[in-house]
Amino acid sequence: METISESLVKTVIQKRPVISHKGNFGRVTLIGGDAHYGGAIIMATESCVLAGAGLTTVITASPNHAPLHTRRPEAMVVDWQDFAAVEQAIETADVILAGPGLGETETARKLLNFLLQKRRPEQWLILDGSALTLLAETSVTKLAEKLRYPETVVLTPHQMEWQRLSKIPIKEQSQENNQKAQSIIGGTIVVKSHRTEIYAHHQMYQNPLGNPGMATGGTGDTLAGLIAAFLGQFPKNSTTIAAAVYLHSKIGDALYQSDYVVLPTKLSSQLPKWMKHYEEQN
Amino acid sequence: METISESLVKTVIQKRPVISHKGNFGRVTLIGGDAHYGGAIIMATESCVLAGAGLTTVITASPNHAPLHTRRPEAMVVDWQDFAAVEQAIETADVILAGPGLGETETARKLLNFLLQKRRPEQWLILDGSALTLLAETSVTKLAEKLRYPETVVLTPHQMEWQRLSKIPIKEQSQENNQKAQSIIGGTIVVKSHRTEIYAHHQMYQNPLGNPGMATGGTGDTLAGLIAAFLGQFPKNSTTIAAAVYLHSKIGDALYQSDYVVLPTKLSSQLPKWMKHYEEQN
Amino acid sequence: METISESLVKTVIQKRPVISHKGNFGRVTLIGGDAHYGGAIIMATESCVLAGAGLTTVITASPNHAPLHTRRPEAMVVDWQDFAAVEQAIETADVILAGPGLGETETARKLLNFLLQKRRPEQWLILDGSALTLLAETSVTKLAEKLRYPETVVLTPHQMEWQRLSKIPIKEQSQENNQKAQSIIGGTIVVKSHRTEIYAHHQMYQNPLGNPGMATGGTGDTLAGLIAAFLGQFPKNSTTIAAAVYLHSKIGDALYQSDYVVLPTKLSSQLPKWMKHYEEQN
Amino acid sequence: METISESLVKTVIQKRPVISHKGNFGRVTLIGGDAHYGGAIIMATESCVLAGAGLTTVITASPNHAPLHTRRPEAMVVDWQDFAAVEQAIETADVILAGPGLGETETARKLLNFLLQKRRPEQWLILDGSALTLLAETSVTKLAEKLRYPETVVLTPHQMEWQRLSKIPIKEQSQENNQKAQSIIGGTIVVKSHRTEIYAHHQMYQNPLGNPGMATGGTGDTLAGLIAAFLGQFPKNSTTIAAAVYLHSKIGDALYQSDYVVLPTKLSSQLPKWMKHYEEQN
Repeated sequence: METISESLVKTVIQKRPVISHKGNFGRVTLIGGDAHYGGAIIMATESCVLAGAGLTTVITASPNHAPLHTRRPEAMVVDWQDFAAVEQAIETADVILAGPGLGETETARKLLNFLLQKRRPEQWLILDGSALTLLAETSVTKLAEKLRYPETVVLTPHQMEWQRLSKIPIKEQSQENNQKAQSIIGGTIVVKSHRTEIYAHHQMYQNPLGNPGMATGGTGDTLAGLIAAFLGQFPKNSTTIAAAVYLHSKIGDALYQSDYVVLPTKLSSQLPKWMKHYEEQN
Repeated sequence: METISESLVKTVIQKRPVISHKGNFGRVTLIGGDAHYGGAIIMATESCVLAGAGLTTVITASPNHAPLHTRRPEAMVVDWQDFAAVEQAIETADVILAGPGLGETETARKLLNFLLQKRRPEQWLILDGSALTLLAETSVTKLAEKLRYPETVVLTPHQMEWQRLSKIPIKEQSQENNQKAQSIIGGTIVVKSHRTEIYAHHQMYQNPLGNPGMATGGTGDTLAGLIAAFLGQFPKNSTTIAAAVYLHSKIGDALYQSDYVVLPTKLSSQLPKWMKHYEEQN
Repeated sequence: METISESLVKTVIQKRPVISHKGNFGRVTLIGGDAHYGGAIIMATESCVLAGAGLTTVITASPNHAPLHTRRPEAMVVDWQDFAAVEQAIETADVILAGPGLGETETARKLLNFLLQKRRPEQWLILDGSALTLLAETSVTKLAEKLRYPETVVLTPHQMEWQRLSKIPIKEQSQENNQKAQSIIGGTIVVKSHRTEIYAHHQMYQNPLGNPGMATGGTGDTLAGLIAAFLGQFPKNSTTIAAAVYLHSKIGDALYQSDYVVLPTKLSSQLPKWMKHYEEQN
Repeated sequence: METISESLVKTVIQKRPVISHKGNFGRVTLIGGDAHYGGAIIMATESCVLAGAGLTTVITASPNHAPLHTRRPEAMVVDWQDFAAVEQAIETADVILAGPGLGETETARKLLNFLLQKRRPEQWLILDGSALTLLAETSVTKLAEKLRYPETVVLTPHQMEWQRLSKIPIKEQSQENNQKAQSIIGGTIVVKSHRTEIYAHHQMYQNPLGNPGMATGGTGDTLAGLIAAFLGQFPKNSTTIAAAVYLHSKIGDALYQSDYVVLPTKLSSQLPKWMKHYEEQN
């Protein structure tokens, strides 16, 4: 188990090549946000845009379009009822994040299944929030099959979601047990807690940072969007995911110096500055 | 009558335990905001989120969803016409705030009665704004029965609302008369004025702070949301309520140094910083 | 013609009495904002709230409700199609501002006429923007009758609107001619130009401030909302109006030091700070 | 090929005449923003307003109205389905920008064709984004005819859009070839890349500034709105366009000192300050 270090983050956050265009920094498609949980997909979008994704498209319920455009006009929107547009937004993506505020309705299920069917193996897929709850209906041994190309899947459960998904009770979520579950499911698993752990194929990371001020609704959504943006810009592997997890907590810790509660949207707003900080030390 | 002091606030605002998750800091459900007074529930939500509530759900008229999500994507929304969702949001709450911008329509009455029926005694309930106007239709002696478990109820009337509720004319709202009314009604009563007083079982507090720049629409909504967040995180008692009242005025006084009018939304925005300030002195 | 001075502003912006409540600082009702010009009523509302009006209610087309609540949850909204609610919002107002973005449709005409019929003489009325265009259909000699109680009316035309209203061509808008028109129309007339002039009964003011960076859409709406807030809080007379005009330009001039164009919404945001500044020198 | 210099920008950004009104600084009409790409027209609007356009009207799909009014109440909106209002907003414009987020639907085609038919030769027209994609269906030799008065048209393609429009592959987009295409099409062509080039009649400019942090969705929309505002206020020629291109990159470079990604909306927010900076050196 490797403790994630600042130097790892610095190797990941590359200086951008002088000659480049937005297509070079990832086409990221986010899926989530029903009528109740629109905020989740908004917060994921915000961190995705602010972490530098080249183009961000959001598939979400229509009541969320206006808040999304108001907060971040940089993102494009697709009504999740419009399957033709949904299909196109999935097809053209380099990286896909599904789950924040997705809910567990029929629409949510249909979208998730459609996505799993349509996804090509080279398109990285992050599954978060409600998507994990829906996946937990599948037995552990059948998850790899359900995900089809698990090697390019990232799961981001918190401990309770991980219990539901892996059937390992929170108290028994030891490194050994988690590693074993990872080897069955495949992909990269980010088990979120006060010291988040990342389980990948032959690689494990532990996050040394984080604080209880981050224990508030939206923190996970913000992390998910950040991972998506990183996979859109930097090498698509677990080291890049580890860097995203570290950066998220690093900013959270900095804000916790002055704020009793670390607002997810404030955390996101600091991304451009902090990424610059690490780029410069590169 | 105890004057609330800074040291009381410091005992209430605890340092968060290192190992914790959002569920530890309260599931708060807010109910209010009709088509006219949507701003009231938005302002209550803002202070609730910014004061550190773990999870905030808002039951409100649908036209308020977009503004709410835009200003604070951290909160979740429920259409107040969707009674199944309303019931769930009430059932899962640790603390409930009802009233800001609720209005006095049939929908408002139905919601309030439904809430009073469904609430369990351990779920703290803050009643503010229109909820107090509706309650004032019940005679003083029947209020305890109407509230069912008054010991876990907080009423936050300003002096005129208190007159309507307690039938004590403003001029006669002496400590003795208010205390007597409290003993009949039960619960904790926050009588808001330029020097707010809190009447609880065998306990009375007076707020030494506050200023006329806070005499503007929304100040009360902001206080109500703040009390809800505090009861979600800290011990559920009148000392915690007193700390919330003090903090609200403390921030208001600080802003009044530079601002002729203290905007409620600006007051809320200072909460994370001020709560940190008191936590550190803990 | 008296040049408005800083000392005049200081006499108007009073320190608030310690014991006070929001009702003491004016119930202001704003009417305007159709489907095209919603921004105008939003900007008027913002300056009204930020200049300290106790309670602000906005009668506007429903598509403007969400933007309004998002930008300033402190304000309450009324759908302008809901005549019962419109009537109530007019009845309970201390000060009414009509016109910003009102448009010239049948709805606009009906609203304006309804307002002129319902208004009581002690309710001050500011007419701005489209309301002036609609009034210009009435001949000068019939305006006083149309306004019913012109002594409590404030008209805020820019030079072209004043030409349409008074039938005096811009080039002939001399002090003498304007004064004569004022004496026929009655009320207070704020003729806006790079050096705004105010014509009241036996009183004339000229604004020494202002700059061309303020020549952008929304500056007038912001002034109108500011005048409404001032009449809600301070003595209802032309000196108070002069103070509002001066303050508006004073802030504009301060911003013009650093900004090529003075955004109306940025101007409004400075109101609490500047009003405090003058209060302190009181 | 002239490298754009700071001194050129200083000659363009004039001090505003003391006696002036909003009409002096351009009536700019923007057309774009369908249900998917509303953010594009919002970002174009923001830079247009913040760069000092006197009056900004936005013709866009109705779901974009609320976000637009929320972010910039200074702008007016027209539903793009309402052809009477569309026609009026085109007729009264000094400068028109069409394309950001316009899309390629039937509505988009109809709007673009309607605009090209209605436009008068003295009304400058900037075509950006989807408008360029639609134009690319016309052969190079027929473009001048399609545009009708190409001498007052500005096209702002990035390299790939320029390839589609001019049929010159990106690798062959040499100065000579671009110049030849310009002479066939007419008008001013802004070929956007990491070093943007401007081709006008007998004049060529190269932008020495810009950075890869600007390679993100919305940067082009922001530039388009800025060009529109400049043509509304300053002499309508290619020097003014060059100044806009330079200023856009200058601000982008300044932000790139501290931000890893240069958010288009943050770039816009700096316009008033930077324009003042250059005005003062004038």
